[in-house]
Amino acid sequence: MKRYGQIIKVKPEYLEKYKALHANPWPQINEKIKECKIQNYSIYYRDGFLFSYFEYVGDNFEEDMKRMAEDEWTRSWWKETDPCQEPVASAKEGEWWAGMEEVYHLD
Amino acid sequence: MKRYGQIIKVKPEYLEKYKALHANPWPQINEKIKECKIQNYSIYYRDGFLFSYFEYVGDNFEEDMKRMAEDEWTRSWWKETDPCQEPVASAKEGEWWAGMEEVYHLD
Repeated sequence: MKRYGQIIKVKPEYLEKYKALHANPWPQINEKIKECKIQNYSIYYRDGFLFSYFEYVGDNFEEDMKRMAEDEWTRSWWKETDPCQEPVASAKEGEWWAGMEEVYHLD
Repeated sequence: MKRYGQIIKVKPEYLEKYKALHANPWPQINEKIKECKIQNYSIYYRDGFLFSYFEYVGDNFEEDMKRMAEDEWTRSWWKETDPCQEPVASAKEGEWWAGMEEVYHLD
C-alpha cells in the first residue's frame, strides 16, 4: 500500500458547489475510484485549500490513473469539478492536484 | 473511528530541522501517540504548509489529548517542534494545528 497526500486550491466562488458535489458524489465515481485500487480517500478544506489523502493498493498507479481518466463518468465528473479548482502556484506544468512530501508516518 | 485533517505552517528556516526530527522521531513520542488512541498518522509538506491526517480510535479525544499534553517526553518534543511551526492566519486564539473540514470520504 502506498499513501498519497496532495494539495490544490478551490476558487472561493465555487466552494459551495464543490462541497455539494462531494457531499453526494455520483455512485459511478466512487465505484471507479475503488476499481482503480484507491481506498480510505478523504478530502479536507480550509482557507482556500483542498487537501487529499488516499491509499493506493494496486501495483501500477500510472496505469490505474490512466484507466480512471478514460472513464466516461469520471470525465463528466471532472467537467464539474475542474472549474472549481486551481493548481497551487508551485504545481508543475500539467500537474493538477500537486503531490506533497510525506515527512512523518506512524501506523 | 474518527478522522482528522489539520493544517499549520512551517517556518522556512526550520523546515530541515522539522523534517529531520520526524524522519527519526523519539520512540517515546510514537508510543505515546498510539497510547492516546491515534493511528494511521501522516504529516505532509508542501509550499510552507504541513498537513496532518490521523485516525482516532478512542472514545474521549479531549481527555486523550490532555493526557498527551501532560506527558514529559511529549512536552520535550514540542519544545523542539513548536518553534518550527506557526498557526495559519485563520487559526482561532490558542489553536495550534488548525482543524480542516472533511468535504469527501470514501472507505
